[in-house]
Amino acid sequence: MSDQRVVRPTPISGFPEWTPQVRAVEQRWLDHIRAGFESFGFASVETPSVENLDVLTAKGETSQEVYTLHRLQADAEDDSDARLGLHFDLTVPFARYVAQHFNELTFPFKRYQMQRVWRGERPQEGRFREFTQCDIDVINVDSVPLHFDAELPRIVHRVLSGLDIPAWTLNVNNRKVLQGFYEGLGVKDPVAVIRAVDKLHKIGDGGVRDILLAEGLGGEQADACLALARVKGSGEEVAARVRELGISSDLLDEGLDELAFVMGDLADLPEGAVVADLSIARGLDYYTGTVYEASFDDDPGYGSICAGGRYEDLAGQFIRRRLPGVGISIGLTRIFAKLVAEGRITEGRTCPTDVMVVVPGAERRRDALLTGELLRSRGFNTEVFHSTAKVGKQIQYAAKKGIPFVWFPPFDADGAHEVKDMGSGVQGPADPGTWSPDSGADSAG
Amino acid sequence: MSDQRVVRPTPISGFPEWTPQVRAVEQRWLDHIRAGFESFGFASVETPSVENLDVLTAKGETSQEVYTLHRLQADAEDDSDARLGLHFDLTVPFARYVAQHFNELTFPFKRYQMQRVWRGERPQEGRFREFTQCDIDVINVDSVPLHFDAELPRIVHRVLSGLDIPAWTLNVNNRKVLQGFYEGLGVKDPVAVIRAVDKLHKIGDGGVRDILLAEGLGGEQADACLALARVKGSGEEVAARVRELGISSDLLDEGLDELAFVMGDLADLPEGAVVADLSIARGLDYYTGTVYEASFDDDPGYGSICAGGRYEDLAGQFIRRRLPGVGISIGLTRIFAKLVAEGRITEGRTCPTDVMVVVPGAERRRDALLTGELLRSRGFNTEVFHSTAKVGKQIQYAAKKGIPFVWFPPFDADGAHEVKDMGSGVQGPADPGTWSPDSGADSAG
Repeated sequence: MSDQRVVRPTPISGFPEWTPQVRAVEQRWLDHIRAGFESFGFASVETPSVENLDVLTAKGETSQEVYTLHRLQADAEDDSDARLGLHFDLTVPFARYVAQHFNELTFPFKRYQMQRVWRGERPQEGRFREFTQCDIDVINVDSVPLHFDAELPRIVHRVLSGLDIPAWTLNVNNRKVLQGFYEGLGVKDPVAVIRAVDKLHKIGDGGVRDILLAEGLGGEQADACLALARVKGSGEEVAARVRELGISSDLLDEGLDELAFVMGDLADLPEGAVVADLSIARGLDYYTGTVYEASFDDDPGYGSICAGGRYEDLAGQFIRRRLPGVGISIGLTRIFAKLVAEGRITEGRTCPTDVMVVVPGAERRRDALLTGELLRSRGFNTEVFHSTAKVGKQIQYAAKKGIPFVWFPPFDADGAHEVKDMGSGVQGPADPGTWSPDSGADSAG
Repeated sequence: MSDQRVVRPTPISGFPEWTPQVRAVEQRWLDHIRAGFESFGFASVETPSVENLDVLTAKGETSQEVYTLHRLQADAEDDSDARLGLHFDLTVPFARYVAQHFNELTFPFKRYQMQRVWRGERPQEGRFREFTQCDIDVINVDSVPLHFDAELPRIVHRVLSGLDIPAWTLNVNNRKVLQGFYEGLGVKDPVAVIRAVDKLHKIGDGGVRDILLAEGLGGEQADACLALARVKGSGEEVAARVRELGISSDLLDEGLDELAFVMGDLADLPEGAVVADLSIARGLDYYTGTVYEASFDDDPGYGSICAGGRYEDLAGQFIRRRLPGVGISIGLTRIFAKLVAEGRITEGRTCPTDVMVVVPGAERRRDALLTGELLRSRGFNTEVFHSTAKVGKQIQYAAKKGIPFVWFPPFDADGAHEVKDMGSGVQGPADPGTWSPDSGADSAG
């Protein structure tokens, strides 16, 4: 301070940071998501923040987004860190993890992973360079039961329904339906069609039709593709509606059976929570069957808030076993930061304290400390005031921090304990060994 | 796979990673530590993993350990990330956080922060390059009540006592006592003496004495320094024992009063949990009063498992306010990884599942799914088996994963629910709407 130069720090674009009141909500969300994942028996996995670059770039196309690490003062001859990069998602590290720990895991292996990931984006409004993802994946040797394709939307439904977020829909599709339909239609390059239809929500029917015609499809073929993309429904009946379009192929049948199985398994969920939407393609991702994508109903343009699907082989580059899987990722920061920016998060308390114990004076300090210990041992988050300031000042501090209860240990040897409910203002005698908040006050008990 | 080159991945030195069974224990530790911090009213803060380099290097001496970030495929003209480095501790980010959010915080600000930190170390056995720290700090404008110097050891005691770790001791000292004692002794360079005494546990009395003599101290002075370093005790009486050494100065008196206050406040803790040890100096850290250091009783050479102290001004380089504080950091990974390596961690379960529901066949699949939902809604972590494999195979899977209960929905319309306790082997009828494990089985309920 004083004569020293002072540089008031500013936020770094793309690296979100919250005040304690907002962080309290984020922590509650993380706890809720974790509990939801565990309620389905998924095990926690965490991986290091870094992977070797050859692991990160095994799939090539995302390599431009990787942050590599360098020691600030590395010697010229030491390049021990030159091969390390921060992970850009949790799927690649998980694939590496499964291969590396193959003999230590029980399959099908169901894991969740909630960690920060990094993308080497250019600084830009709304682009995160560090964010938290919450992933669940099931991986198995040789084949993964379709059961899990249906279980993942159930888990996402349970998790997102318990968070106070605007209306959203989880859309489900199956890549085999798309590929099989286009093949049955006689299209030569189904991937080109998938790529075109994936733009439907951005460029509309006309735009997609133009691309399809330019790809060499006939008008009827293009119209059939668009008709397929318009099929949408909450139950198994979507399969019948696709069949009504009059196209058939073995792959299409297989895909429709899978889609019907998934939607049938989810029949007990509230109508509209999970919707089969035949326009969802998930771009050119490595998905081969079921695909998932959720977005906000009132802001679909914001993009997906969770996404995933089934892949034929996750870890083939690391191990000589076929390890197919199905997974889904919730974009926690993507959802949370948007709601914070729009003022739609009800901020939490500034601190987790349930009770603040007043220190009546230096000579009664030990009583206050022991009262604090007793309340804490009973499950109440308890602060003992940090000085022997005037009692009014102590109460003021509790009010400013939003602490719901203030405790008064006896002010003299003959006195009694009292507690004040800061919400109602009511104060009365209480026993620290048996007291509990009468009503809905937030306690850790 | 097949003809593709397969590279079985290997661990990256210094970046720890656990199997699910070990991770389950780590997660339990983190939850326990968090609950301990919150029970004293500390609020959660998280900061980005990166800081601007000028923030990280504001104090200079640690700059060689910083990892800087670079985009793998950055264009030559884009150096937007060149000024970013991963944080190497949680104190510097916290100082920056307090300065940046100064007007949004209530002081004294009590925060905890549990995050990964990174050190750009050369790969070396036992050196972590990524590890988790659990920090608590109190920061205030102009002055911090001594109350907190005593509260932090209380919190550490509560937190570490609840973890299944080998015996440890939290040692407390006060830099004012050291500085004041050496000044009272007529020593010209007290910092040189602190630096020498700090080596006591490595080089012994003789080694320290030699350094002190070389520093120009007389034999009596050196002996007095060593006598001070031998003072150790559990209560306020250590102050009297220092006074018996016959040295006096105002600073020494102040330090001894502070030390006596801290030890007096902690009188209710078990004997020996927190010990005043006048040999603890915490090297040349920026501490100015109370200092803390904990180590394992049976392996003091492993170094500190938690450390901290009081500093005069935490954020002076970022804001024109004096912001003193007191804090302590628990080296979670340092403790945990050592116990894992020594086989002293009792591994957790492979998964959090309490109950696995058997699927008797395709036609009873919906019953099984609904039973799973019901058990889940009652707080039990529940897996529904993922196929209609033979029942024996389903039970085998539950046994292999260590799932404590297997649930059998009715095998036909007239049947009844049954549950099997996998520990005792006992199986009997049960109602999924009211059932609970009879005995000590691990449930989430």
